[in-house]
Amino acid sequence: MGSKHLIDLEDFEVSRWESIINLAHNIAKAPQFYFGACHGKILATLFYEPSTRTQLSFQTAMLRLGGRIIGFDNPQNSSVAKGENLKDTVTIMGSYADIMVLRHPYEGAAKAASLYAGCPVINAGDGGHLHPTQTLTDLVTLSMDKGRLDHLKIGLCGDLKNGRTVHSLIKALSHFAGNSFCLISTPELRVPQYVRDIMDARGVSYTEVSSLEDVIGDLDVLYMTRIQRERFASQEEYEQQNSKYILDVKKMQLARPDMIVLHPLPRVDEIEIAVDDDPRARYFAQAKYGVYARMALIMNMLSDPDPKPLSEAQAPSLHCTNPRCITHVEPYLPQLAQQNNRCGFCDHDLAEK
Amino acid sequence: MGSKHLIDLEDFEVSRWESIINLAHNIAKAPQFYFGACHGKILATLFYEPSTRTQLSFQTAMLRLGGRIIGFDNPQNSSVAKGENLKDTVTIMGSYADIMVLRHPYEGAAKAASLYAGCPVINAGDGGHLHPTQTLTDLVTLSMDKGRLDHLKIGLCGDLKNGRTVHSLIKALSHFAGNSFCLISTPELRVPQYVRDIMDARGVSYTEVSSLEDVIGDLDVLYMTRIQRERFASQEEYEQQNSKYILDVKKMQLARPDMIVLHPLPRVDEIEIAVDDDPRARYFAQAKYGVYARMALIMNMLSDPDPKPLSEAQAPSLHCTNPRCITHVEPYLPQLAQQNNRCGFCDHDLAEK
Amino acid sequence: MGSKHLIDLEDFEVSRWESIINLAHNIAKAPQFYFGACHGKILATLFYEPSTRTQLSFQTAMLRLGGRIIGFDNPQNSSVAKGENLKDTVTIMGSYADIMVLRHPYEGAAKAASLYAGCPVINAGDGGHLHPTQTLTDLVTLSMDKGRLDHLKIGLCGDLKNGRTVHSLIKALSHFAGNSFCLISTPELRVPQYVRDIMDARGVSYTEVSSLEDVIGDLDVLYMTRIQRERFASQEEYEQQNSKYILDVKKMQLARPDMIVLHPLPRVDEIEIAVDDDPRARYFAQAKYGVYARMALIMNMLSDPDPKPLSEAQAPSLHCTNPRCITHVEPYLPQLAQQNNRCGFCDHDLAEK
Repeated sequence: MGSKHLIDLEDFEVSRWESIINLAHNIAKAPQFYFGACHGKILATLFYEPSTRTQLSFQTAMLRLGGRIIGFDNPQNSSVAKGENLKDTVTIMGSYADIMVLRHPYEGAAKAASLYAGCPVINAGDGGHLHPTQTLTDLVTLSMDKGRLDHLKIGLCGDLKNGRTVHSLIKALSHFAGNSFCLISTPELRVPQYVRDIMDARGVSYTEVSSLEDVIGDLDVLYMTRIQRERFASQEEYEQQNSKYILDVKKMQLARPDMIVLHPLPRVDEIEIAVDDDPRARYFAQAKYGVYARMALIMNMLSDPDPKPLSEAQAPSLHCTNPRCITHVEPYLPQLAQQNNRCGFCDHDLAEK
Repeated sequence: MGSKHLIDLEDFEVSRWESIINLAHNIAKAPQFYFGACHGKILATLFYEPSTRTQLSFQTAMLRLGGRIIGFDNPQNSSVAKGENLKDTVTIMGSYADIMVLRHPYEGAAKAASLYAGCPVINAGDGGHLHPTQTLTDLVTLSMDKGRLDHLKIGLCGDLKNGRTVHSLIKALSHFAGNSFCLISTPELRVPQYVRDIMDARGVSYTEVSSLEDVIGDLDVLYMTRIQRERFASQEEYEQQNSKYILDVKKMQLARPDMIVLHPLPRVDEIEIAVDDDPRARYFAQAKYGVYARMALIMNMLSDPDPKPLSEAQAPSLHCTNPRCITHVEPYLPQLAQQNNRCGFCDHDLAEK
Repeated sequence: MGSKHLIDLEDFEVSRWESIINLAHNIAKAPQFYFGACHGKILATLFYEPSTRTQLSFQTAMLRLGGRIIGFDNPQNSSVAKGENLKDTVTIMGSYADIMVLRHPYEGAAKAASLYAGCPVINAGDGGHLHPTQTLTDLVTLSMDKGRLDHLKIGLCGDLKNGRTVHSLIKALSHFAGNSFCLISTPELRVPQYVRDIMDARGVSYTEVSSLEDVIGDLDVLYMTRIQRERFASQEEYEQQNSKYILDVKKMQLARPDMIVLHPLPRVDEIEIAVDDDPRARYFAQAKYGVYARMALIMNMLSDPDPKPLSEAQAPSLHCTNPRCITHVEPYLPQLAQQNNRCGFCDHDLAEK
């Protein structure tokens, strides 16, 4: 049935995504029928950096399935997170729990945890690298609200350079036929080359534009993200540019009546609060669907009968070139190499030692 | 059946208080029979400032009903409480949970939360404004220990000026026939005018005295509160006055054998520890009854079939004059006005913008 | 059936240890059969200093028994732990919960809590004094992995002076016939005189050596502990000595094929990570057995039908000479004296006031 762990959404076959999404639909119809699905099971939440929203979404999911929760979320206060290497903590917590969710500031940390956990590991964010359950939430929301994952025209607006959420969603939707992307950003904040390479390789059509106003009328979906002030070259640049990327009631009037607005939340000011009252604003529904997505994921992973062996090889003569990679702070980790000679933890280039 | 939310105890009819109090009595007799009453339900505890005691009381109540808990209590560490407006947090948490408890440093915050929560909201303290479940706990304790809520002579001792607990209890007991109050404090710390106005309007008899020793022999109930050292004009004043308001074994000898002593806790030194061994000291029992009161409240609110619409009007040309009001830190909130032209959030005066 | 509380493992008869250990064995065989044993029960965890590992072990134990958890673990943030004396907090939490676990930086704190709790109290560490559930975990692990608690040759290596874990384990194993100890440390870090006195009094044979390498081949069990750098006289001394007490793959080659390695965890560098792959390394299994040990303990203590009265007398004219004793920070505590005239809280000498 495939991978025991969810580190990258690409670890799962697309058919497995579809099973999980279908299960999430059924849960959304009658969540109470799934209370008891995880009776007697324990989810461990290992949050090496705080992310209250993600943690609460996982906790709610497990509790709605009738399961229980252990974990920590306060690295300053936690002797586990402080005094001990990742391997030891994960080995022990994995022996206490039936399934584990890990969030960590270093890239590749969830993959590293999966080597030692003894139970399935879900990546809830490893630095700026991956956050697959956000993408799964986005897919569940699109399929719930638009009725399909293909033949959609998706606008992505804001900071497309640094947003792992955006990159993951583009990769995920590129697996479905007929989707096209409208990438709305300043030239400095456009999507990285590797994302354009993926779209090109998969024959996905996309356009890059600088004005939300010009394109909003064409979209089935508008996916908003935050632009951090420090991304702009200067304060004048910020003031001049930023308002073009704020979604307000006026811009919503240009959109189609069946367009939906999504946002991974939290928002700051990139969506005007008055837009919340528009029925096309679906970001709060999206947060709720995130619980159903995680319920479906937990059920799927706990029933996986036949885990797949590790696909990466050990490469003791190489080391990872990414200073944010977990291999640099947990030195006992074996260096894993993918077939394309990239790091098995964080996907960056490897080099000779 | 009335209000969906409990912001102010006055939101509920007195007959509803009585239902809840009766239910609390039944729970106290056999708590184990109520395990299961909230099977499959989730209580969210949103504590924007720490209050471990209140939070533990609510958590125990929900767990004793068979329900589950999510929430946060560490604003410094919580990305939810930090990065996002109250509306967004409450909207999302309200879609995860079946009922919500909110504690917040700003006055009116619980009312603000009730506008967006989607589930019933319980006010667990909004700044110095209201804390209705403490008052409910006091009523349950009085009815358990004295067998009635009317025809009681209640002494209130300590800081009667700043204690919201005291003001609420006076307001609540003024609804029952034949109660009278003995208000024991320094002249500087007597109850505010608006509380005296309520007693006068309801024809409740009260006396104001400065000596606990003189009156303790007349009381059915002595409700102690803490006096903070900084409330006194000087250190000499403090040393001279404070001991008059400390309840010790010697003063207890002057009290009637059926008088009971209550305290909202935590205490500092206003009740001598040796008094704990006196069977008339009921403040620890009161803390335990607080769990039963909250169990009864949660059951009552989750079974409310027919919520009442908002009674306040929007008043866009007015603003609240209270700098501690939630409207000043959450600017998207509509200004609500009560019929007496006071703020719908914090009960302070409104003024033209 | 004996003591209601577990403050010191010696509070329980050895026959009661054996009942708990046997129950832990049965739980280990089929943990899922014990889910439900504490249905409807609440465990309170009062952690006045953080100890994430111990807290998670207790939480997992209670959840695996079907019970629920309340508590606090962040004294900086907890108004309960901050604003109020131990007596009041413990009285209230003990009325909320069915059983309580307490961790506190002061010696004797768990004993003090047991005077007021109203429910059984488990000591999860009181300063440098006692930590009986770690010793219980060690006994369960030995009996699981070696099949017996007697006629074992146990090596204890590292800081034998300051490790309460080591002292407790020696005391506990001295109750079983035929055990002998090999105490491996620098002269500065050898076991204290009082521990040697216990071994002598009970006729237990032991040797004190300075080289792990010389003796590892004789051992049935090697119990490793951490040496803190500041225990050495100088940096040169540390560098010269420390490696002698690090367990590495090379030293493991000298050990018998059925020797097992234990460690209370967390480790720093006193066991090389490569040793983890040796099947004789049992410290991670030990952590897992710690959950079973605590499950068995909770079940045993909740079924205790007939608590034993306090064995210590009040000694108002004496005071404890240990500045780390709880009596010095909680002044309302009665001074308790054991028959040997030691403090009933922390076991140090008493003196006239």
